[in-house]
Amino acid sequence: MTSMLNMEIELISIGTELLAGKLNSDSSFIGESLGKIGLELSRESTIGDEKRKMVSLLKESLKRAEIVITTGGLGPTFDDLTREAISEVLKKRLIFRSAILKKMREHFQRRGLSMPKINQKQAYIIEGATVLPNEVGTAPGMIVEEKGKVLILLPGPPRELQPMFIKKVLPYLKRYSEGSLKTISFWIAGLPESSVAELVEPIIEKYQKKEKIEFAILVHLSIIEVKLKVKGENKKEINEQILPIRKKIRKALGENLFSEREEKLEGVVGNLLLKKRLKLGLAESCTGGLLGNLITNIAGSSRYFQGSIVAYSNNVKKKVLKVPKTYLRKYGAVSREVALAMAKGARKSTKADIGLSLTGIAGPSGGTKEKPVGLLFVGLVYPRERLKIAKEYHFVGKRQDIKYRAAISALNLLRRTLI
Amino acid sequence: MTSMLNMEIELISIGTELLAGKLNSDSSFIGESLGKIGLELSRESTIGDEKRKMVSLLKESLKRAEIVITTGGLGPTFDDLTREAISEVLKKRLIFRSAILKKMREHFQRRGLSMPKINQKQAYIIEGATVLPNEVGTAPGMIVEEKGKVLILLPGPPRELQPMFIKKVLPYLKRYSEGSLKTISFWIAGLPESSVAELVEPIIEKYQKKEKIEFAILVHLSIIEVKLKVKGENKKEINEQILPIRKKIRKALGENLFSEREEKLEGVVGNLLLKKRLKLGLAESCTGGLLGNLITNIAGSSRYFQGSIVAYSNNVKKKVLKVPKTYLRKYGAVSREVALAMAKGARKSTKADIGLSLTGIAGPSGGTKEKPVGLLFVGLVYPRERLKIAKEYHFVGKRQDIKYRAAISALNLLRRTLI
Repeated sequence: MTSMLNMEIELISIGTELLAGKLNSDSSFIGESLGKIGLELSRESTIGDEKRKMVSLLKESLKRAEIVITTGGLGPTFDDLTREAISEVLKKRLIFRSAILKKMREHFQRRGLSMPKINQKQAYIIEGATVLPNEVGTAPGMIVEEKGKVLILLPGPPRELQPMFIKKVLPYLKRYSEGSLKTISFWIAGLPESSVAELVEPIIEKYQKKEKIEFAILVHLSIIEVKLKVKGENKKEINEQILPIRKKIRKALGENLFSEREEKLEGVVGNLLLKKRLKLGLAESCTGGLLGNLITNIAGSSRYFQGSIVAYSNNVKKKVLKVPKTYLRKYGAVSREVALAMAKGARKSTKADIGLSLTGIAGPSGGTKEKPVGLLFVGLVYPRERLKIAKEYHFVGKRQDIKYRAAISALNLLRRTLI
Repeated sequence: MTSMLNMEIELISIGTELLAGKLNSDSSFIGESLGKIGLELSRESTIGDEKRKMVSLLKESLKRAEIVITTGGLGPTFDDLTREAISEVLKKRLIFRSAILKKMREHFQRRGLSMPKINQKQAYIIEGATVLPNEVGTAPGMIVEEKGKVLILLPGPPRELQPMFIKKVLPYLKRYSEGSLKTISFWIAGLPESSVAELVEPIIEKYQKKEKIEFAILVHLSIIEVKLKVKGENKKEINEQILPIRKKIRKALGENLFSEREEKLEGVVGNLLLKKRLKLGLAESCTGGLLGNLITNIAGSSRYFQGSIVAYSNNVKKKVLKVPKTYLRKYGAVSREVALAMAKGARKSTKADIGLSLTGIAGPSGGTKEKPVGLLFVGLVYPRERLKIAKEYHFVGKRQDIKYRAAISALNLLRRTLI
């Protein structure tokens, strides 16, 4: 094994559908996860399911790199050939493991199904490999150590690969890292990318001269992430480097900074509601249920989320939310007045403490000169604090982008009301 | 140039930030765009900005493939080395072009800036290359033809790369495609991957012997896609090859086949509702608004979607949906009886023709032995047809996966009721 600093890790993603652009490869997940333990990929390759090509690529990679990770091609069908290709490259047999077959049978039984015969293939593993159990699907992963090289075989579907990588592969790979790299992120809502850049770039550039810092500003639609990668001899040195920068960035971003952990805005808002023992009810129009969906992606959200009235038609606005007919006629469904009436109705009909509403025009059609596509009103009522807020927003983008930006803006308004 | 069927196209993405998972590479955009003109990538590789590695990868690729596309590394900074690496590999000089410099100066002037000196580097092009103007940024793209091989250099940022690829590169590459490849997909809901495989594999394998057919079965959680790639001399030949296979696959899949176009299940259901002039109202519990969100991702859904009552708390189930208190006590919120009462309440409160409801346990906690995580009841009431359906489902997976599978199952039950 060469020294840590020269050690190379290569990733091979297998699947014709990846090359056709049908699925996202997992390179970004794996690259980012490795970064957390101070390791980096030196090359990533994607090829189809042809065995001849896989064999030649694997041979090349094993010549260059100490660690080779493959994803995909472990499924049950005839075009899943990773096992066979690696068996050929390493000149190791495929061995049948009845314990794996038993586990797979149980996996199907739990769902009231009998195991199709073709799945049997997945019970074969490379001779001498350490088996990584698959908690979600049938294909187990494998780690094979051979002549100072390491080959790690992982299933392709992200929901199978990701927990296996986090729980089994990262702990295994930690022996090759020495805490010499740390990544921290600042999560921001309510500011555009350019404003975030203007606030944080001068701070980071000042320190960049003396410390080993890389940084990037990443845009996830309405959420901005400022990511720093700091290198140093050891953890203590890194933490000392980060401290003053972190302080200055926090000050510059103020209340727009909503987290410094891998945490979603809906999780931050959920924690605030829990802490204040407040229950939330929604009235959604243009978002069609998206905000309720985001909020309920958080486990345990039933402790603070009562429900959402998705009032796509005016009938529901009138009948369930009790929005006055005259408001709809006089101001229109997309208006400050209707947003407030919807928030009030949301609170009442869901028996919540806080009512939050969204009404807008998601497009692509339905806009007018006065009320263009992308217009949104968010309403918030919170009687205990005697609050009644209606805020206007303007977004651009595709229908789904506008829906997402609308949901995030409403969540952020709620967060800023609660802090 | 070798014959079309053996022609290989490789993509090389350049940039250390790609390997660190910081940015998505453009392989999916390029793969999908090539597919539209009947071409495919045979390999995709990502490497960092090290010139030595780039040179060796370029040499390997040019040995294997007839067309090599690179993205990235055309920027103005010291670590943008694609031009230099390719100049070395092809043994061609870099030549200064004053016309490009002039254009770049104008690009900065339009924004009221003077051009930084480092950008001068971008005015150098490979000797003999065709220049692809950059409408959005400064780095021009290039096409170099050399000894029967084609090298295409493109900038990395998606907003610069994508218009250049669509407007300049695709028209150029069309000469290599002759309608000699066609991709068709069959979209399936309501069957697991292995059952789909057992139904369609024997059909495809039978034809595979005489025709040039590749196929893949792709899993998008509860949605399965069977994808066929058929090669032939011309379009007519391909269509004649596909016809009998298509017929047999349709027959084998029956009502589980919901589309043969790039169309979502929510779009198919929307069209059925439109055609039958029916309005839909939802009552969602465990999905938290996800089904309403999916339905309203379709533009024009307000013509058939009335709204959704997201009844996350029992209060909303009682107050808005009028689910009898005794049902909740006697059968529990996750039960056949409550699902039907919710569907009835959804129909009434949203003034719809059809009421569709979901109640289940998304997990990770909240399950019991009798009612485990993953249990779902879907209710459907449609008085005009005197229909009252309550169906039970069991899913495994993470919270978000269970929510998605639940939403898709309810949509599919509705689709099968309407066809």
